Amino acid sequence: MATAGEMLEDPAFEFTDESLQWIDRMVDYNVLGGKCNRGLSVIDSYKILKGVDVLSKEETFLACTLGWCIEWLQAYFLVLDDIMDNSQTRRGQPCWFRVPQVGLIAVNDGIILRNHISRILQRHFKGKPYYVDLIDLFNEVEFKTASGQLLDLITTHEGEKDLSKYNLTIHRRIVQYKTAYYSFYLPVACALLLAGENLDNFGDVKNILVEMGTYFQVQDDYLDCFGDPEFIGKIGTDIEDYKCSWLVVQALERTDEDQKKILFENYGKSDPACVAKVKDLYKELNLVEVFHEYERESYNKLTADIEAQPNKTVQTVLKSFLHKIYKRDK
Amino acid sequence: MATAGEMLEDPAFEFTDESLQWIDRMVDYNVLGGKCNRGLSVIDSYKILKGVDVLSKEETFLACTLGWCIEWLQAYFLVLDDIMDNSQTRRGQPCWFRVPQVGLIAVNDGIILRNHISRILQRHFKGKPYYVDLIDLFNEVEFKTASGQLLDLITTHEGEKDLSKYNLTIHRRIVQYKTAYYSFYLPVACALLLAGENLDNFGDVKNILVEMGTYFQVQDDYLDCFGDPEFIGKIGTDIEDYKCSWLVVQALERTDEDQKKILFENYGKSDPACVAKVKDLYKELNLVEVFHEYERESYNKLTADIEAQPNKTVQTVLKSFLHKIYKRDK
Repeated sequence: MATAGEMLEDPAFEFTDESLQWIDRMVDYNVLGGKCNRGLSVIDSYKILKGVDVLSKEETFLACTLGWCIEWLQAYFLVLDDIMDNSQTRRGQPCWFRVPQVGLIAVNDGIILRNHISRILQRHFKGKPYYVDLIDLFNEVEFKTASGQLLDLITTHEGEKDLSKYNLTIHRRIVQYKTAYYSFYLPVACALLLAGENLDNFGDVKNILVEMGTYFQVQDDYLDCFGDPEFIGKIGTDIEDYKCSWLVVQALERTDEDQKKILFENYGKSDPACVAKVKDLYKELNLVEVFHEYERESYNKLTADIEAQPNKTVQTVLKSFLHKIYKRDK
Repeated sequence: MATAGEMLEDPAFEFTDESLQWIDRMVDYNVLGGKCNRGLSVIDSYKILKGVDVLSKEETFLACTLGWCIEWLQAYFLVLDDIMDNSQTRRGQPCWFRVPQVGLIAVNDGIILRNHISRILQRHFKGKPYYVDLIDLFNEVEFKTASGQLLDLITTHEGEKDLSKYNLTIHRRIVQYKTAYYSFYLPVACALLLAGENLDNFGDVKNILVEMGTYFQVQDDYLDCFGDPEFIGKIGTDIEDYKCSWLVVQALERTDEDQKKILFENYGKSDPACVAKVKDLYKELNLVEVFHEYERESYNKLTADIEAQPNKTVQTVLKSFLHKIYKRDK
């Protein structure tokens, strides 16, 4: 990974051997090991926008670099989210702040990961006509993500547990800001900038991608409870963790007084008997059906919106995204 | 404070009432209450550069806005540093993460403060010829500060306490990066950009300001131990906190084997008897004298460097900084 190595020779700081080793290890530990879906989407989208199967060496390099920037942004969010959520593991290994000798130095490591993005953009894109737009894009998406995270934190954690704060509006807003912008809009926006486009002309594309990201997160919430743990690679704990999941907000919309009482009494407890009562209630309320209905409607709406796009190439980009995520089971 | 209010109407995020109140309170708690020296320096320096006593309304607004950006940057660093250092109080009140209901949400609040800077710059400076330079400047200074903080954290906290890691070179490097760039260089660099200058032509000015920032921090280290607590407004705890202070590195340079043993055995302990032994050793080693000698030399060197500057106006800016800090006792 050329980009990681570069971060170790940045002339803006006189590193000591010890700090070089620290950053090298920290970047390896946190940036690598994911599926790189977001980063790879930049390259895929850019190929479609250019109408080619093979990019030039220069184009490949720039698209890969922006892809890595998104992976770096994700690493930065995950390192800090894990601290705030007091999580145990991430991508099959202990969370970075749980590694011996790291602890809360991980807060500063998160900041350094964010700063690497600015360094990478400056090194490889300064002088390009879209340099300012690229910086503004990353800044805007970061701000939206941090604001979504704030909304999630104060809705979910603040004070005593209070399910009456959870509803579809707040769920949607958290998901859009915290996940959809950086996971779905950002890769395509990077590809559009590389292709010389002005993002102001792509407001609809932004809305469609944010909608797709929302749908993706609803699937995630659904699979956490109803997916096959063998298949999705983890055992869901949204109920135990008192998450503002799409399932619990749907349940809250549909419960009578007695059922609401069951939810309030059992949601957010780690006792397996409590979890089972919540799951039984979800089944009683037909949430599996409700989800499949939502999935159908969402797919139809997205397809219609995509086909209403005047630009065929952009349609192809959006459809390739949609087909990657529709009816996934992991 | 116009800027704080603006952050609450940012169209990039659909705030809920609860999240608006949170951010309002968080900004008030963390950005206000300091001395604003860094922010005010932008305005003072800009006035000197323009050669006027009174700036136009527009110029005042822009200079104040950049001043607030530096105060926001400082707030962001302090919120996160206090978490990492597990500190108790800041500016006479509990650290933000110690406020009930805040806790580690403070990590995300730090991120939001950083993001506010990008939002403020975009809102008021996008379209100015120096917009990119302004963003690059804040990014570079933030990266240097975070790298300095990493160096401090891994030198000071990592593993068991080991004084043999402390020396003048590492002390100087930590101080330059962690404090001097953002406290001394950044305000003047902002004023230079406002005045239409190209920062590439001011490499010497940067070096002089970083040197001044280093001298300022050495004073701080000295006053922590030898200043009058009534006068400086706090009781120093650098010895108890095992800080990589200028005094301890000077002591390490001057100790014989027996004295070194005393330092190793007593430094970093909260027992007042241990602290007293360290202070006695400092006196025995004449560190008060060593400091005054350093102060004289540093002042003479800085004055000579300033007078070697070809630009008289820039000389005036630098001298006004130097006179603010020389021989201060608080």
